[in-house]
Amino acid sequence: MMPSFIPPDVLLLGPGPSPVPPNVRAALARPTIGHLDPRFIGMMDEIKELLRFAFETRNALTLPISAPGSAGMEAAFVNLVEPGDTVVVCRNGVFGGRMRENVVRAGATAVMVDDAFGTPIDIGKVESALKANPGAKALAFVHAETSTGVVSDAQALCRLAREHEALAIVDAVTSLGGIPVRADAWGADAIYSGSQKCLSAPPGLSPVTFSERAVDAIRARRTQVQSWFLDLGLVMGYWQGSGARAYHHTAPINMLYALHEALLGLEAEGLEHAFARHLAHHERLRDGLAAIGLDLFVAEGARLPQLNAVRVPDGVDEAGVRRRLLEDFSIEIGAGLGELAGRIWRIGLMGAGSTEANVDRVVAALGECLRRKAA
Amino acid sequence: MMPSFIPPDVLLLGPGPSPVPPNVRAALARPTIGHLDPRFIGMMDEIKELLRFAFETRNALTLPISAPGSAGMEAAFVNLVEPGDTVVVCRNGVFGGRMRENVVRAGATAVMVDDAFGTPIDIGKVESALKANPGAKALAFVHAETSTGVVSDAQALCRLAREHEALAIVDAVTSLGGIPVRADAWGADAIYSGSQKCLSAPPGLSPVTFSERAVDAIRARRTQVQSWFLDLGLVMGYWQGSGARAYHHTAPINMLYALHEALLGLEAEGLEHAFARHLAHHERLRDGLAAIGLDLFVAEGARLPQLNAVRVPDGVDEAGVRRRLLEDFSIEIGAGLGELAGRIWRIGLMGAGSTEANVDRVVAALGECLRRKAA
Repeated sequence: MMPSFIPPDVLLLGPGPSPVPPNVRAALARPTIGHLDPRFIGMMDEIKELLRFAFETRNALTLPISAPGSAGMEAAFVNLVEPGDTVVVCRNGVFGGRMRENVVRAGATAVMVDDAFGTPIDIGKVESALKANPGAKALAFVHAETSTGVVSDAQALCRLAREHEALAIVDAVTSLGGIPVRADAWGADAIYSGSQKCLSAPPGLSPVTFSERAVDAIRARRTQVQSWFLDLGLVMGYWQGSGARAYHHTAPINMLYALHEALLGLEAEGLEHAFARHLAHHERLRDGLAAIGLDLFVAEGARLPQLNAVRVPDGVDEAGVRRRLLEDFSIEIGAGLGELAGRIWRIGLMGAGSTEANVDRVVAALGECLRRKAA
Repeated sequence: MMPSFIPPDVLLLGPGPSPVPPNVRAALARPTIGHLDPRFIGMMDEIKELLRFAFETRNALTLPISAPGSAGMEAAFVNLVEPGDTVVVCRNGVFGGRMRENVVRAGATAVMVDDAFGTPIDIGKVESALKANPGAKALAFVHAETSTGVVSDAQALCRLAREHEALAIVDAVTSLGGIPVRADAWGADAIYSGSQKCLSAPPGLSPVTFSERAVDAIRARRTQVQSWFLDLGLVMGYWQGSGARAYHHTAPINMLYALHEALLGLEAEGLEHAFARHLAHHERLRDGLAAIGLDLFVAEGARLPQLNAVRVPDGVDEAGVRRRLLEDFSIEIGAGLGELAGRIWRIGLMGAGSTEANVDRVVAALGECLRRKAA
């Protein structure tokens, strides 16, 4: 007989999942109730309200998709993009490439604007691409590239989209709750995120918000949405119905308890305080790494405070250091993805994981691993 | 400031979610670890093994999709069906209609075989449809119709599919763990289920299993799978990779802890014991309902033990009784769906919910509600 699985206690300082606080885990374990129970539906309304707070929006269509961030990305593309459309897609990391996959699988053409991994999206190149593709349905970009630790200028990119009458589709998986995501002020049309980064909930849900303009585009579709599960016209019937909600799928009840509790934590802290905390611990990490001879991969000014790409020094066994951190120090950090595999480590200071103590612990442990290596 | 959400304690005797035992909820709340942590990957392998036990299969491609049952359904169709294909779809309830939606959205033609809601699928009609549509890519049917409480002959239907060289796609959302689901003995090609029915885990995951024949069909596709999130070619890289797993999406870590624990419970009880328990409590419910003047909607021999459709007597306020059960007795039962709305109640005795005490409690409460109404 197999035993129950008892996970080890690991400090999660990778690219996500981030540490889930005890009160959020306690919420997760509360008794399951029905997904059509009036009290559950009341909680769903509160989650929508809390997500509007997190996204800084009044968008009516704001809810968590019942699946991980990748499904939130897919929901944005399959609902807003139709076969034959053209979408300008910015790619300065792995997740821009994934956006391209989504555009192509929706039967549309992706016009790629490429920037080097580790640099922000070049606004001028995007403007040229939009000019060269009049009538483009959307501009899609990653606000916070989890694969490189780079932030791009979401406000400027959304403004460009509006100027060219394209919908702005924004990947905020790693940004929401860690740095400002201002849906309304930017004029973004679709933003998707994940529960397991700066929101400090377990992985499995993807908060999304869609502007009125996006909802109009969904209503004006010439073709059916290719996904039944992610068809927002149907999802809305469950999340937004007044009175009798239309059954669509069974909501992940307990996961939603956890998201609700995690969002209450963000509300209690306040967005600006959370952003300042992420920034302060990023600076402490940067200084601590410098003291042990490690550099950040991304240039100053383009760095995400919550996801720090660290150059692996020449001659150091990248995977070996991560393994020692995990085995000897119970700390998880991330590897590089795609073309950055083997070249960087990724240290996440996300949500509840962004604390002074965690910074000091990972710097000390990394220093120890590197010294052992040198010895 | 909003308070934390404390759900009421409700006995879940509807069509799912079913009651989640305390040990499964405790597993859910264990510390989150990384989705690429070797210990987590070891647990993923155990889940695959436990699911093979539940599905009675040796299929290598057996895993939980990171989203609810509707996404499992979509995974089966978008991976096995291509534009231009023809699929014979049996519809004797709401979920057969949803299968049709999936076929159409995959760009294929659905040939419908309709039977009345509340009756099993007519094998002869299916045989005629397969004969009339030579070269049909698949035969799709619902084993246990959650909307009506009817079981159909999955073994005979899978045999027909094989005889006509069509893939057999089986909806076992409500059957898995409650009545026999014998993937290999039937020769089924794709079966999907849900975590929140007879498996007694919270909603949010969809266990699936695909035969070698189905995997060959996926490998032989002429077109790309339209969903990136549900593309099994990519999902397999994460769940089946040996050594270095390819990152696809962030797995819902804590939900997988819960599924692992719930499956251990099923293994400890044994499948045949679980089936006998579901049957015995169904019979007790049937007798108890008869004693208070209530009939089952489905004819004997076609009834699902885990999902009992009960005729609403003439003159009884269907929704009112459900509301009183919930408010006064803290018991949830289900309403009718689609054309059965208002005409039936659905009483689920699923997984950990299938106990003698629960049967007696719901019969007594229903009797009380009906007496009050009559008084």
